[in-house]
Amino acid sequence: MTYQELSREELLKIKASLEEEYEEFKARGLKLDMSRGKPGAEQLDLSMDILDPVYIADARAKDGVDCRNYGVPLGIAECRELFGELLGVPAKNVIICGNSSLNIMYDYIAQCMISGSGDAPWASQGKIKFICPAPGYDRHFKVLESFGIEMLTVPMLDDGPDMDLIDELVKDPSVKGLFCVPKYSNPEGKVFSPETVRRMAGLKPAAKDFRVIWDNAYIVHDLYDDSPELANIFDACREYGSEDMFIEVASTSKITFPGAGVSVIAASDKNIEMIKKRMGVQIICHDKLNQLRHVNYFKNADGIKAHMKRHAAILRPKFEAVLQKFDSEFSGRGIARWTTPKGGYFISLDVMEGCAKRVVALCKDAGVALTGAGAAFPYGKDPKDSNIRIAPTYPSVEELSLALELLCICVKLAAAEKLTAQK
Amino acid sequence: MTYQELSREELLKIKASLEEEYEEFKARGLKLDMSRGKPGAEQLDLSMDILDPVYIADARAKDGVDCRNYGVPLGIAECRELFGELLGVPAKNVIICGNSSLNIMYDYIAQCMISGSGDAPWASQGKIKFICPAPGYDRHFKVLESFGIEMLTVPMLDDGPDMDLIDELVKDPSVKGLFCVPKYSNPEGKVFSPETVRRMAGLKPAAKDFRVIWDNAYIVHDLYDDSPELANIFDACREYGSEDMFIEVASTSKITFPGAGVSVIAASDKNIEMIKKRMGVQIICHDKLNQLRHVNYFKNADGIKAHMKRHAAILRPKFEAVLQKFDSEFSGRGIARWTTPKGGYFISLDVMEGCAKRVVALCKDAGVALTGAGAAFPYGKDPKDSNIRIAPTYPSVEELSLALELLCICVKLAAAEKLTAQK
Repeated sequence: MTYQELSREELLKIKASLEEEYEEFKARGLKLDMSRGKPGAEQLDLSMDILDPVYIADARAKDGVDCRNYGVPLGIAECRELFGELLGVPAKNVIICGNSSLNIMYDYIAQCMISGSGDAPWASQGKIKFICPAPGYDRHFKVLESFGIEMLTVPMLDDGPDMDLIDELVKDPSVKGLFCVPKYSNPEGKVFSPETVRRMAGLKPAAKDFRVIWDNAYIVHDLYDDSPELANIFDACREYGSEDMFIEVASTSKITFPGAGVSVIAASDKNIEMIKKRMGVQIICHDKLNQLRHVNYFKNADGIKAHMKRHAAILRPKFEAVLQKFDSEFSGRGIARWTTPKGGYFISLDVMEGCAKRVVALCKDAGVALTGAGAAFPYGKDPKDSNIRIAPTYPSVEELSLALELLCICVKLAAAEKLTAQK
Repeated sequence: MTYQELSREELLKIKASLEEEYEEFKARGLKLDMSRGKPGAEQLDLSMDILDPVYIADARAKDGVDCRNYGVPLGIAECRELFGELLGVPAKNVIICGNSSLNIMYDYIAQCMISGSGDAPWASQGKIKFICPAPGYDRHFKVLESFGIEMLTVPMLDDGPDMDLIDELVKDPSVKGLFCVPKYSNPEGKVFSPETVRRMAGLKPAAKDFRVIWDNAYIVHDLYDDSPELANIFDACREYGSEDMFIEVASTSKITFPGAGVSVIAASDKNIEMIKKRMGVQIICHDKLNQLRHVNYFKNADGIKAHMKRHAAILRPKFEAVLQKFDSEFSGRGIARWTTPKGGYFISLDVMEGCAKRVVALCKDAGVALTGAGAAFPYGKDPKDSNIRIAPTYPSVEELSLALELLCICVKLAAAEKLTAQK
């Protein structure tokens, strides 16, 4: 029976019992963090061998470049080849950067604001706008917000963002781009279907300087062997000649180390040329020793994929613990819906409308940090106050099950509070 | 006897003999690079131990932070303390960044353009200008040029830039800042005197959002034990309350590895807060494992200074080889002047007016790459076509002496060419 079907008396009883359970939890003084998509320590341990000096040997790249010294601003050849193979693009269309793909995206938007993406500087074009499939990645939205770019929310459907709506929005020449996570979208874990990828490649924006930031953060972050494949965006572009419209980024933050990995840009010849020009003024080179480490450790894309299976073995039980708990606590109660991703770092939970903030606050007061309610929406505003991003990767399975126990109590309690107040 | 005092016939004879020597050199097919301030391989070898995993031990910072994971955007506490000690500022006024201080400076100027340095965005204030002591660092000028900031050249005197002229220039409110290398200035190796530092701190610019980029690239890069000291700019600021006017940067690019060091910002509370806010959108964290390596390897500022003595032992013979050669080839001939720096990475050579481009071209044709003539001036334009930046660090002593041999022939040949054409 759903909560909605219960009588006020039944709900008040449930509420009283939940309040009791909640107070018991609160008394335990938990201090758990499910707020960010951070790998757990066990995952980080998987990559400790990469720090063995054997992987930087004599510090020489294949072509003899001394990786300790200045130079080679686009990254050593073998590292560009490795990530070219992984992303399915030629090495010449790849630049290896520092440890942060967020940094790449920020710098690219800054470049567009100051110098343009191929036309006049965005900052000189009056009010400009970006399309933001939502729920989405909060840090994308923060970048846009920091540059004063207006965000237009587009709903995420099962196979990616609402492309019909996007087709309409791009008719406005002040709409300059779109941020997305095409595989295991943050936070829902959805994968853009081949048709969505094709439609993205075929977009006909009024703005000639329109750019899609294709944040392929979870490109090899599958939980299962039969996880879905994402179509190659640059392959799809060939049909339309739209290669210049896409800036793809990825990183090893969740392959090796979030604090000490390498990040990568893939883009068309024209975009690589423009980024290279800016980067040539901005920096002399990125950390080539770390590039060498990554290449010598992984050797090729298969090496990375094999490594990711070890991550998956650690992450699967965590994701499954969340899904089983949600299933047993919420099924048939009409108070929550959630996604069942096959990879990535998040599960998206939609609680009863108007209850997300309350749930997050309740959890916080009892010592469990969740991502702020609304964070997955532009300007941090979830119109339904319903979405909560669940990040199950960082806590241990034991901590996670404790945190879930509390979370489920809070979701039910907030629903009971809402319904009893209404009835 | 100076070249100027010689007869046309004597000069023609000298010229013919130099041409012969030059052709002999050309025939040797040299391929030497004296163009950039890169450490030599022997210097890089000094720091190989830092890559030993022992220096990242369990990857934990003192406060327990796992340096492999996300977080701690301003840098781990002990690394901020280390560089705070080195720069003579409190750790709270230090941010540790990636491997490039150029990247810090670029990003800071970009931030000022887009969001301002404390007032309106620079990009919204019409034509803005920067003061550029010259000869100076070509990459500073490239940054300014890339943002369309007009550069005002100010001559370097023996104790730093011409402060009287700067006092005048800052009366213009469109003058927003100044780039400088206060210790072992690039390329002259001059050290700002205590009085220059005091006058810098006491500047009264009309622009309230005026910023001095204090690029302390060679803070511990002394060649001799009795090398001159640079006064602490933030100490000097206290007298005037002008701390907000200075952004200091430094890096370990020429302490450990140019490709894999750490860089650092030192700034006032207010500026740190503004940079922190932007960085919080731009990046989740920098490479904390590398921060940990640097701290555990050096331990404290004395550890860094001891390490730099080993660099000095390698660099001194190279600098002295250049100076001895210049002395023996040019003294009393009226065709060249040069600086005699006590540290840093460069020697500045002024050849006969109108001859620098010719000398660089001659050297290039014979296989020795020098920094482009004019590079040390805004817009790459040396008004006297006289300055050549000598970077003696990268070649071995043997290569260097070969390159010097050629360079001296070219300097004399260009002078002889010029004088014979005139007479």
